[in-house]
Amino acid sequence: MIKTIVIVGHPSPADSGCQQFLRESAQLEQVEYYIATNQMDYQQVKRVQEHLVEFDRIIFQFPMYWYSVPGHFKMWIDTVFENSERNNLFSGKEFGLVINYGVKSSDFQAGRKERYTLSELCRPFESFANKLGMIFLPIFSISQFYYLTSSEMKRLAVDYQQYLTKKNSNDFLSKEVWIQQRLNLFAVQEKDDKRLRIFKHIVDHIASNRDQLSSLEESLTWIKEESSYE
Amino acid sequence: MIKTIVIVGHPSPADSGCQQFLRESAQLEQVEYYIATNQMDYQQVKRVQEHLVEFDRIIFQFPMYWYSVPGHFKMWIDTVFENSERNNLFSGKEFGLVINYGVKSSDFQAGRKERYTLSELCRPFESFANKLGMIFLPIFSISQFYYLTSSEMKRLAVDYQQYLTKKNSNDFLSKEVWIQQRLNLFAVQEKDDKRLRIFKHIVDHIASNRDQLSSLEESLTWIKEESSYE
Repeated sequence: MIKTIVIVGHPSPADSGCQQFLRESAQLEQVEYYIATNQMDYQQVKRVQEHLVEFDRIIFQFPMYWYSVPGHFKMWIDTVFENSERNNLFSGKEFGLVINYGVKSSDFQAGRKERYTLSELCRPFESFANKLGMIFLPIFSISQFYYLTSSEMKRLAVDYQQYLTKKNSNDFLSKEVWIQQRLNLFAVQEKDDKRLRIFKHIVDHIASNRDQLSSLEESLTWIKEESSYE
Repeated sequence: MIKTIVIVGHPSPADSGCQQFLRESAQLEQVEYYIATNQMDYQQVKRVQEHLVEFDRIIFQFPMYWYSVPGHFKMWIDTVFENSERNNLFSGKEFGLVINYGVKSSDFQAGRKERYTLSELCRPFESFANKLGMIFLPIFSISQFYYLTSSEMKRLAVDYQQYLTKKNSNDFLSKEVWIQQRLNLFAVQEKDDKRLRIFKHIVDHIASNRDQLSSLEESLTWIKEESSYE
């Protein structure tokens, strides 16, 4: 199981609807939530550094301020990661960004208002990861949180949970496995018999879907092999 | 004459040899030197905002910390420029970056250690300028200051002075005009007769060079015209 730490770089997360929503969504067993402040003494910095090493995936989560992190969070980053490229502590870990911003996501492209893609604007973070030998994950971005409908918010919660805990892969199987694991987890905690039956029914349904997909894949492979003999 | 403000984003410029050198080099009539701190009350922020508007060229000068500005400087930027895209105060002004870093400048390219060019890593600042309607100047970068020879340092001082005060143009004439103006300025202040004669001699020499170049250019134009009739 992937152990993840979310480092929140919002100056006052309690005042942000988006941050509160994400905090709620991140209440998962293997996820730790950490609010970055810039007032730390030497001992605290040391402790944070040692703590970070325990995780497989490190996430920086922040609202975009001038195409980068808020200043106080940059101070935190500068302090905690100072000289850390030398001691190789973070090498091989995964590193992700959860960024929210107020403009439309389609504005981040050549020819549009923001001119550059989010990937281009996040080169400094990609370089940060490269320098520390970390694996840079695709960016998780949230555009105009306040305009989201309730079904879009539900979708966001699941996508966000996957970003924090799912194996880094964009294939359908990894999503399926992730959802099955989550449902099994709910099933264990569920006391209501009716709801439990529903959970099990969904899990079974996913499993039988998977079987069907597998046999279709096998048939496809077989057809391809057959046709290559012609 | 271009009025320039250099905003220094080094956390302790007095401890930096590079920053001290730049400060010495920036002692020019039309250049103001300003050290950014992140402890400002509302009135101070207002005053800084009003002051900035008086300049034609705004320069951010900083050591590169994790491919961006030091955290305390980002806090200053966040505070001073908050909401300033709305009031259009900086539209049409020039915006430049003076960045020093410890790695080799040739490392900033595809296939090398740093993978991305400095231009790519500075997209967030280019976007900052775009957002405020400012003209983004080419980046002035200083690599490995401590390894510079004394003649490289002299060269750096002149290039830096040009970056702060010269018309934004890469042509030879603008450099020539800039040097003539600087020499004339020295000549006015010079009391030693011998040195004064040297200054005047250099100024005359540059002027006669310019005449020669002009007549060569005329001849070239004439030759091109002639050959186009053939």
